[in-house]
Amino acid sequence: MRLQLGGMAVEAHSVGGVETCFQLPDFGLCLDIGRCPEGAISQDRLLLTHAHIDHAAGLPYYVSMRSMRHQSPPDIYCPAASHPTLARLLETWADLQADTLHCRLVPVSPGDRIPLPNDAFARVFASPHRIETNGYTLFRRIRKLKEEHKGKDGTEIGRLARSGSAIHEVVERAELCFPGDTTIDVLDADPAVTTARVLMLECTFLGSEKDPEEARQGGHVHLDHIATHAERFQNEHILLTHFSKRYSAREIRTEVARRLPPALLERVELLIHEP
Amino acid sequence: MRLQLGGMAVEAHSVGGVETCFQLPDFGLCLDIGRCPEGAISQDRLLLTHAHIDHAAGLPYYVSMRSMRHQSPPDIYCPAASHPTLARLLETWADLQADTLHCRLVPVSPGDRIPLPNDAFARVFASPHRIETNGYTLFRRIRKLKEEHKGKDGTEIGRLARSGSAIHEVVERAELCFPGDTTIDVLDADPAVTTARVLMLECTFLGSEKDPEEARQGGHVHLDHIATHAERFQNEHILLTHFSKRYSAREIRTEVARRLPPALLERVELLIHEP
Repeated sequence: MRLQLGGMAVEAHSVGGVETCFQLPDFGLCLDIGRCPEGAISQDRLLLTHAHIDHAAGLPYYVSMRSMRHQSPPDIYCPAASHPTLARLLETWADLQADTLHCRLVPVSPGDRIPLPNDAFARVFASPHRIETNGYTLFRRIRKLKEEHKGKDGTEIGRLARSGSAIHEVVERAELCFPGDTTIDVLDADPAVTTARVLMLECTFLGSEKDPEEARQGGHVHLDHIATHAERFQNEHILLTHFSKRYSAREIRTEVARRLPPALLERVELLIHEP
Repeated sequence: MRLQLGGMAVEAHSVGGVETCFQLPDFGLCLDIGRCPEGAISQDRLLLTHAHIDHAAGLPYYVSMRSMRHQSPPDIYCPAASHPTLARLLETWADLQADTLHCRLVPVSPGDRIPLPNDAFARVFASPHRIETNGYTLFRRIRKLKEEHKGKDGTEIGRLARSGSAIHEVVERAELCFPGDTTIDVLDADPAVTTARVLMLECTFLGSEKDPEEARQGGHVHLDHIATHAERFQNEHILLTHFSKRYSAREIRTEVARRLPPALLERVELLIHEP
């Protein structure tokens, strides 16, 4: 499904327990790889949140297809704990193919910065889930008028600029945050989760048939958790993703509209894959 | 793409170097698994021709999804040479998932028979390719009037039947043959290739831009090979598959119509995935 979120193009695929892959061509990357949908192959890098199969199954295929199509070996960033096993996975496929799978597989840990094209970067945070999981926030460096010059008129700003004063400063703006599979405790994991312009948040479970605390124990978010913490979200756009396959499109729309307060609802989009 | 070939339902996906998976619900199986399309998950067994990634990438995903959906652990048949490495691949995924991937991974070799539901079976033959490759022929056991009774009228047949004579015999009929990735030498690999009711034959290359002998050295079939050996095919239906991604739907249709003689052409279907 092709989306525009806060001016950014996102090719989104996420169904809980089935497949998760987000392509962000503006940043030249994928967040998770799912089974590796066709469009993912042309993204130069992959930021893997965790190594569960619905998020990582397509990793060897992604590497192999890029090589077959004479594209550069991709950079793949993964949680440090899964690095040795993912390396072994790629070696096993190399044995099957009788060929090396060329890529740079880089373990990253909370606090690390990953350089991206056009002076952008990603920052890693620890996302609470059943296994070690990295959340990623994508930042752009933006030139902004300095705080002290705000409110001044154009003529004065022009005069200052001509006099050689530095009237702008460069700020790092959190454009998009993706915690991957996570619990509602992620709201305290990193400031970017609630402040990034765009938040892509999993919401695996809805409704009263699933106990919210049980969802949390299983490493997932329940819609009720989002409703309870509604006032914490300062994001401009919130994409709810990763709904369990058990819910119909209608159920998702109905429950979300019923449970979220209007001030949050108006900023929420839903990733629903109609059959 | 959903096809009917000789009365059998085939959910077909095959593009050379991209993905190959055929689902045959009538036999409860997949021939190769590609990236594991959704429908493949509900087939109880997988017959893998060879372990190249465009044919085998989805194997761990297939096993894992069946377990997640509480379906029986699948039976997976593979070439003997690839068995240890495929077993290691599944173990590696089990480590990543912190869970066993339950399946029965069975090495099979030319001449082996694989039991299938409803008294059907598959027979393995060696298919010429760059790495060890199994071709599979699917057989049904069919009750037929004995040769000696053919031509007799209904009254006499009825009398014979009432007298206790065995008027029928059970024959093993080759319903569908799939050599996987192969060269034209496959025509001599097993009698079923040219006699099975349905043959699904790869035809990776067309036209004069690719030298047929070069295609053969690379382990693939060129359309010219099929034209040259046109008179050998006794099959009722021939599905040409695995066309290289480089060819448009129009090119494929044009070249096939131009190069194959009418007596063959009328039995040929083309697996073309329109964009």
